[in-house]
Amino acid sequence: MKALTFLEPQKIDVVEKARPEIKESTDVIVKMLKTTICGTDLHIISGDTPEVPKNLTLGHEGVGEISEIGEGVTNFNVGDKVLISCITSCGRCEFCKKGLYAHCKDGGWILGHLIDGTQAEYVRIPHADNSLYLIPENLEDEVAVMLSDILPTGFEIGVLNGQVKPGDTLAIIGAGPVGMATLLTAQFYSPAKIIMVDLDDHRLELAKKLGATDVINSTDSERAIQQIFELSNGIGVDVAMEVVGIPSTFDLCQRILAPGGHIANVGVHGKSVELHLEELWIKNITLTTGLVSTSSTPMLLKTVSAGRMAHVDELISHHYTFDEILKAHDTFKNASVTKALKVIIHF
Amino acid sequence: MKALTFLEPQKIDVVEKARPEIKESTDVIVKMLKTTICGTDLHIISGDTPEVPKNLTLGHEGVGEISEIGEGVTNFNVGDKVLISCITSCGRCEFCKKGLYAHCKDGGWILGHLIDGTQAEYVRIPHADNSLYLIPENLEDEVAVMLSDILPTGFEIGVLNGQVKPGDTLAIIGAGPVGMATLLTAQFYSPAKIIMVDLDDHRLELAKKLGATDVINSTDSERAIQQIFELSNGIGVDVAMEVVGIPSTFDLCQRILAPGGHIANVGVHGKSVELHLEELWIKNITLTTGLVSTSSTPMLLKTVSAGRMAHVDELISHHYTFDEILKAHDTFKNASVTKALKVIIHF
Repeated sequence: MKALTFLEPQKIDVVEKARPEIKESTDVIVKMLKTTICGTDLHIISGDTPEVPKNLTLGHEGVGEISEIGEGVTNFNVGDKVLISCITSCGRCEFCKKGLYAHCKDGGWILGHLIDGTQAEYVRIPHADNSLYLIPENLEDEVAVMLSDILPTGFEIGVLNGQVKPGDTLAIIGAGPVGMATLLTAQFYSPAKIIMVDLDDHRLELAKKLGATDVINSTDSERAIQQIFELSNGIGVDVAMEVVGIPSTFDLCQRILAPGGHIANVGVHGKSVELHLEELWIKNITLTTGLVSTSSTPMLLKTVSAGRMAHVDELISHHYTFDEILKAHDTFKNASVTKALKVIIHF
Repeated sequence: MKALTFLEPQKIDVVEKARPEIKESTDVIVKMLKTTICGTDLHIISGDTPEVPKNLTLGHEGVGEISEIGEGVTNFNVGDKVLISCITSCGRCEFCKKGLYAHCKDGGWILGHLIDGTQAEYVRIPHADNSLYLIPENLEDEVAVMLSDILPTGFEIGVLNGQVKPGDTLAIIGAGPVGMATLLTAQFYSPAKIIMVDLDDHRLELAKKLGATDVINSTDSERAIQQIFELSNGIGVDVAMEVVGIPSTFDLCQRILAPGGHIANVGVHGKSVELHLEELWIKNITLTTGLVSTSSTPMLLKTVSAGRMAHVDELISHHYTFDEILKAHDTFKNASVTKALKVIIHF
């Protein structure tokens, strides 16, 4: 079979590999139908993640059909169409029992990170009973792919961690795919204002369509801070969500927060940040971080398939066949030019 | 009357002042019976807090008797013995309605900070109905003083913000008066282990008596981190409480945390800290900060007066008369030598 493979930093290619086989009784093999590319894949390709072995197949999102099944798997049958969760979890360890599937002692984020992932014709999914979901009939496959990672991440790490409540004023810093997922899922809780902040006017336009009440281009960051305070009665926002992963956007979040406010860090950071405790110690703030646990996936599947999330399909900007996956990677990497959000790869 | 007065940075003295008068109908005047000194007073005296006006009477803790009462006050009568909360609050503004009395738009921490405080023979208490408490008959006055600030601070900013649960492993970094208050109130929730960390063996000995299951002298901080991991199954603590207020103790907290853990920052910080988001982004941690709101004061009064907090009186290390208040300040400032915790000043 063919697999998009991380060869060494800065170098990926489509490589011929053996089809994966069942290793544990709790595994299944999935024949891929749709996959996509995540910002994290770009981190891996850039060489930021030394833990990733060479010759690994990338990808942790997608939809496929079960082609083979371990004898310990009870939830699924060969032929089932399934959503692959970016998080693999045993459901039994200490962390899983707390709902912290992200930190499963025999899983977590392993697909396309520590074991071969979904940007290949076939993929082995460990702990399949806890890591796959049947796809409701009325949900399009490519929309379902949004539930592998970005929608649960935006919801759990942005909205739930940020404790979004009716009437809140939110600022979402970063209008990439996960920022947009945060914007969509924040609306479950009827905040009064959702201020979307980004450097790209094209993304801000789409954010308006997806439900942002206000959008701010933060090219001039001091001006952006002033505008955010004007939109929040001069006291700052109730929830600031960092969905970029760099020190400057984190800093923006700590500067716009009201007393009692929440910073939900969603971004993947490669560097430490300066936390202004000399100002924040007295402000009764809450800061959260996290890798998604995907415990909200069943709820999100119900919500999206019930038509309760308008415009979710607009997160998809480009389509490619699997033969074109290297071109898809180029398009996704150059998002500022190509205006890419999520890129769907069809097998 | 006499008042311990902040004259200028590094300079305090007992000064003769006019007795305070009712200014607003919601004020009362309290004749002081007991007061104490807080670490925050030391910050003010050192000159760290430019917002504090010269000639201000210090102090935000104490017990006294109401000597005069505004006509809008309905909860109290002249002659009532009352506990003075370190937080003054109107109970009506947007922040008060969220229970964030610390950020009351017409109050917050103002006593001995922005208006004359409790280290004087008389003090004016604004918004008395929401900022004073009757003292249960069986509660000693000097023990009640522990409820003005340190017990609610330890409980609300340490224990509640840290979301202490039965079975948790906690580390409390800093065994000063507030650290000890955190230790006492953490036991409401039956954690499995409370590891107390400090540089002072004398304080650690007392911490054991007050309920610490383990104590660690952190003079060698790398060894201390190793010991904490040994005490927490190699995965780190569920809750780390920073009760010092300097970068190195904050750093210790972020290094000992289990995935899904909480850092409750209780310390008053004068400098920013380095937050290692490059490691923490993936760990699903929660970091909280805050000034106490004292919303737990009624509960704590009931708990302490019901005898549910053994050894609370051991937080009191020294007694002085008001005539000796300068000496009391010296004793408190030189705690490493004098072994001072809370110093009670009797009028």
